[in-house]
Amino acid sequence: MVKVGIIGAGRIGRVHITSISTRVRDAQIKTVADPFLSEETAAWAKSMGVEHTSKDYTEIINDPEIDAVLICSSTDTHSPISLEAIRAGKHVFCEKPIDHDVEKIKEVISALEGTNLKYQVGFNRRFDHNFEAVQRAVAAGKVGRPQIIKITSRDPEPPGIDYVKVSGGMFLDMTIHDFDMVRFLAGCDATEVYVQGANLVDPAIGEAGDVDTAVITLQMENGAIAVIDNCRKAVYGYDQRAEVFGSVGMAAVGNDSQSSAVITNSDGVTGEKPLFFFLERYMDAYGKEIGAFIDAIENNKETPVNVMDGLKPVLMGLAARKSYEEHRPVKISEIEEEKNV
Amino acid sequence: MVKVGIIGAGRIGRVHITSISTRVRDAQIKTVADPFLSEETAAWAKSMGVEHTSKDYTEIINDPEIDAVLICSSTDTHSPISLEAIRAGKHVFCEKPIDHDVEKIKEVISALEGTNLKYQVGFNRRFDHNFEAVQRAVAAGKVGRPQIIKITSRDPEPPGIDYVKVSGGMFLDMTIHDFDMVRFLAGCDATEVYVQGANLVDPAIGEAGDVDTAVITLQMENGAIAVIDNCRKAVYGYDQRAEVFGSVGMAAVGNDSQSSAVITNSDGVTGEKPLFFFLERYMDAYGKEIGAFIDAIENNKETPVNVMDGLKPVLMGLAARKSYEEHRPVKISEIEEEKNV
Amino acid sequence: MVKVGIIGAGRIGRVHITSISTRVRDAQIKTVADPFLSEETAAWAKSMGVEHTSKDYTEIINDPEIDAVLICSSTDTHSPISLEAIRAGKHVFCEKPIDHDVEKIKEVISALEGTNLKYQVGFNRRFDHNFEAVQRAVAAGKVGRPQIIKITSRDPEPPGIDYVKVSGGMFLDMTIHDFDMVRFLAGCDATEVYVQGANLVDPAIGEAGDVDTAVITLQMENGAIAVIDNCRKAVYGYDQRAEVFGSVGMAAVGNDSQSSAVITNSDGVTGEKPLFFFLERYMDAYGKEIGAFIDAIENNKETPVNVMDGLKPVLMGLAARKSYEEHRPVKISEIEEEKNV
Amino acid sequence: MVKVGIIGAGRIGRVHITSISTRVRDAQIKTVADPFLSEETAAWAKSMGVEHTSKDYTEIINDPEIDAVLICSSTDTHSPISLEAIRAGKHVFCEKPIDHDVEKIKEVISALEGTNLKYQVGFNRRFDHNFEAVQRAVAAGKVGRPQIIKITSRDPEPPGIDYVKVSGGMFLDMTIHDFDMVRFLAGCDATEVYVQGANLVDPAIGEAGDVDTAVITLQMENGAIAVIDNCRKAVYGYDQRAEVFGSVGMAAVGNDSQSSAVITNSDGVTGEKPLFFFLERYMDAYGKEIGAFIDAIENNKETPVNVMDGLKPVLMGLAARKSYEEHRPVKISEIEEEKNV
Repeated sequence: MVKVGIIGAGRIGRVHITSISTRVRDAQIKTVADPFLSEETAAWAKSMGVEHTSKDYTEIINDPEIDAVLICSSTDTHSPISLEAIRAGKHVFCEKPIDHDVEKIKEVISALEGTNLKYQVGFNRRFDHNFEAVQRAVAAGKVGRPQIIKITSRDPEPPGIDYVKVSGGMFLDMTIHDFDMVRFLAGCDATEVYVQGANLVDPAIGEAGDVDTAVITLQMENGAIAVIDNCRKAVYGYDQRAEVFGSVGMAAVGNDSQSSAVITNSDGVTGEKPLFFFLERYMDAYGKEIGAFIDAIENNKETPVNVMDGLKPVLMGLAARKSYEEHRPVKISEIEEEKNV
Repeated sequence: MVKVGIIGAGRIGRVHITSISTRVRDAQIKTVADPFLSEETAAWAKSMGVEHTSKDYTEIINDPEIDAVLICSSTDTHSPISLEAIRAGKHVFCEKPIDHDVEKIKEVISALEGTNLKYQVGFNRRFDHNFEAVQRAVAAGKVGRPQIIKITSRDPEPPGIDYVKVSGGMFLDMTIHDFDMVRFLAGCDATEVYVQGANLVDPAIGEAGDVDTAVITLQMENGAIAVIDNCRKAVYGYDQRAEVFGSVGMAAVGNDSQSSAVITNSDGVTGEKPLFFFLERYMDAYGKEIGAFIDAIENNKETPVNVMDGLKPVLMGLAARKSYEEHRPVKISEIEEEKNV
Repeated sequence: MVKVGIIGAGRIGRVHITSISTRVRDAQIKTVADPFLSEETAAWAKSMGVEHTSKDYTEIINDPEIDAVLICSSTDTHSPISLEAIRAGKHVFCEKPIDHDVEKIKEVISALEGTNLKYQVGFNRRFDHNFEAVQRAVAAGKVGRPQIIKITSRDPEPPGIDYVKVSGGMFLDMTIHDFDMVRFLAGCDATEVYVQGANLVDPAIGEAGDVDTAVITLQMENGAIAVIDNCRKAVYGYDQRAEVFGSVGMAAVGNDSQSSAVITNSDGVTGEKPLFFFLERYMDAYGKEIGAFIDAIENNKETPVNVMDGLKPVLMGLAARKSYEEHRPVKISEIEEEKNV
Repeated sequence: MVKVGIIGAGRIGRVHITSISTRVRDAQIKTVADPFLSEETAAWAKSMGVEHTSKDYTEIINDPEIDAVLICSSTDTHSPISLEAIRAGKHVFCEKPIDHDVEKIKEVISALEGTNLKYQVGFNRRFDHNFEAVQRAVAAGKVGRPQIIKITSRDPEPPGIDYVKVSGGMFLDMTIHDFDMVRFLAGCDATEVYVQGANLVDPAIGEAGDVDTAVITLQMENGAIAVIDNCRKAVYGYDQRAEVFGSVGMAAVGNDSQSSAVITNSDGVTGEKPLFFFLERYMDAYGKEIGAFIDAIENNKETPVNVMDGLKPVLMGLAARKSYEEHRPVKISEIEEEKNV
């Protein structure tokens, strides 16, 4: 039984509290800490089997009984708390992205060197039943040599404009999941990115200097070409699809819906919309990612999404931003050189 | 090149004129005859390449140049014209059913004996790309030993009540196609029929002594159980599906629609309705059935739907009617004994 | 928080232990009792949060702290333990069927009279996301007046022959779920049953006097005709589909699979098989049915599947058996008169 | 009745002979001319109702009875024969592309000025039932403002390397159809193209200086971003899909297959592959495009794919090639300025 502390009891923190208490057998949440912890949240956490709640996250860092820390606080705190936790000898599960600043990610990488601590980044989609099935098919050779990889990733609604302003931009906030997915499905890194971006959903997003719609082309190391299409708003819900086309076949996955019910009438044949958003679509995946983290700790395995897997999509996001700004293809190596990675 | 005469230029006659002129290479329509032939229809037939039109079908029967006759006139004339054509040495394609009266079908069977004339009955669905694919799968052993056979067959709208009254009832008029399909898919005959029928669509149909909705269970010779569900009215169009479930798998087909277009919006994921009715769904099948008839003539083959295939579904329809009236399972052999078949 | 005791720690008992501990918020399992309780099972139950285990179920019946009993023992004990639990003032959730013997079900009904105790029968499929969606569509008028109801229900493999012999036969053991589903979807009772049954899967089942394949037609009170097709073995897994066709449309549901992954290659376009069996398909439904039972207790509501809903499918199953034996349609009222219901 | 002459009796010429003789009511093929016309082809053409065949295409140009010419000869002859036909006062249907050389297309445009001759370019996919349905949905406002347009277009096998060398490259030979489709679906022109291309299918194609795999991003005038993915070889057949995602919904179409048959067994749920190639997929579309051309002539309408619709995809193809060579986004206006369009 691994004792964990959870730092941050916002939306994603509560997701992990729920999924650990219902889906993860070998983990026990000792403490949940959040500076803005409400009494309601504290009571709810207790009802979910959390032993202790606090407004002070250092209670977790300093607790010798706690083996592992889940960092679910705001993005700007991910890397500093990662460092504190690592220095305190804790295993770390950190929500994505580790940081917008590559320097800070490099500090986390350095801090991990020479330790046997496990570090996992929260790219939950790798644990989704659909994406997992595509990855398995690719890894099993069912598509042959990958040639074209396509990812559709559209949110049902844009975040608030205040969030957009601190989000690091769509590429580091939203597309970062798709950058990770491209690496996961291709089984290799990207070498170049080209972005065609637009502001079509909400003018305020454009005024904040960000895009809300984009088609992003990537050259992959294995020769495949990948393309991601993103939009901050799809009226029909969360659109999360992938396709890998290769020399001997194609593997593709679509969306999940609440049921397979189809109504046929004089208007046509109508099935249900995709599940609304990430809480609906990925609840099982959140449980499985923490399960894998706990398994890595208990059985001294490599985490399935390690600190380098946390760095790479940030480099891709920075390259994407540069491509958008300079309206040209940008090599990942340009960013690596710039950031001395 | 086989010269054909078409007797009857109503809806189904015009279907055959169209399909022969556009889809059948080795047939040439010499004459179309219909006592009620309008000038418009005659002109249209000419434009389709028909050489000659007439109001007198004996012009076809007596024309030594004509090799084959397509009987597309009203049901009560099918067997007498069959006899005349056979006696005149013509090959015959006869629309279903040959007759409601088994005695008259027996006369046609007798007339064919000792001749080398081809006789084909118009069970067009056997030539539909979907049903053909299921039959091929079954024949190729892909489902193993058939255990359950299911046919859904629903019309988009009931025929006029005047037609209902002379139609021989739903079992001989509509279900007869499904009885043929059950034999085609099972590769054997039925031994028993049980009908659960109802009058749910239009009270006038019930007043005319007929049903408009039914679930019909059949015991097949090979051990499989078959079930047909029929309705005279499906608001969404012509519903024509089949499924064969067996010891090593299941083969199933659905409906065709005008396109594969799917609209996804806040109401759901909506595809197109099935094609409206038999003209839309089976136009290619009509061409293929005549192509097979012409091929049987030219290459002296057995027709794929012979006169016995025309008799059997009539026996099944009579058994179904008796089952409905007496509310009990009825063996096909009861009807055979009664009719001395 | 409702305190429950679970009697029986076999397969279905363990399902309920799992689902309550992971999916049901307001229930706490105080005791699990099973005469054959192994140490492993006891340890596992403890790990799932069960307070206490025992080999003696009367510890549950006699425990004043326990509000509700889940009867998950063998079928022959369902009604006697129901009576004991009711007399001890416990709410009861009883696995299906309450009993094969109508007299014993009537005793349970009598025992409940005048109490305010909740009694729920384990027809879990009503809580499945797919079937629920069809029922909601029907109840919302989306299909209009139901005309044809179709249920496909096939198991991936037959039970052991020893179980078959004590199971009460396929109609009371397997079809009973489908009888309940027909009532749930139609929103009314059946009045008559006709069975076409066969022994196609395993000769030993036939030697034990049972069928393994059947097509069952039902006349429903609301005029609709229902048809169930059953088989004890489908090589592709658990086949659980339903369709309601009515005057203004059709609602249908298919199977669930592990993922939406589709592989397209030179062999075709291949998706995944249905989920293997009831544990895979209905785990969420098991949680929801207990959630509904707990909700009925806490909020003094009618249970969604009450004791009469437990009786009716038994009557249908007895009628089905009689229909099979006497090879004729059997009215439910015949059975009701026979059993004095 | 419009009298047509067909120049070129290769694969696409024979497609038009077949589709006119079976699907187009108001056209009569007077002459088919091909310098390499074999006796077999001539005999076949006669059997399809062609009045006359010749090795000399000027017999068509100079025949005063012929109203319209279909140019189905090799690409390098499209524009010169177009000019001859226009000067002879014939309506012209010209296979794509009009020419690889913009100058020559401009000559055709000039030649048409001041005449009332109809000129149509062979972008047959606009007449495909699926793509038509998407275009109608977009035009009817069902997706709202288009935001992302996706086209998948993959051939089942690459052309011979000799053809590749004279084809003008993949962008002018294969992608040109997709460039037209993007304009058709978006309802506007593209302003910029970016290509990520690769040689993954056959090294000989790369040695010939061409790509065989590409992802092509386009900025559209209406703000939408379009993306085309191309490959010269898909092992599963001809992959022709499209999707338009907009502010109120998404319209998408998939492939057609020979039947809707699905086999479910222990390996999964397997449907048929897409139809093999363009002859199988687009036969109906070829008939409809010629029908529309004939209709434009008979009713003095604008052709649905006019000479400017022939020019624009060539400009897009040239921009795509330049983008590939210079590895940067290229504006269509760059090409227009260069070519003085």
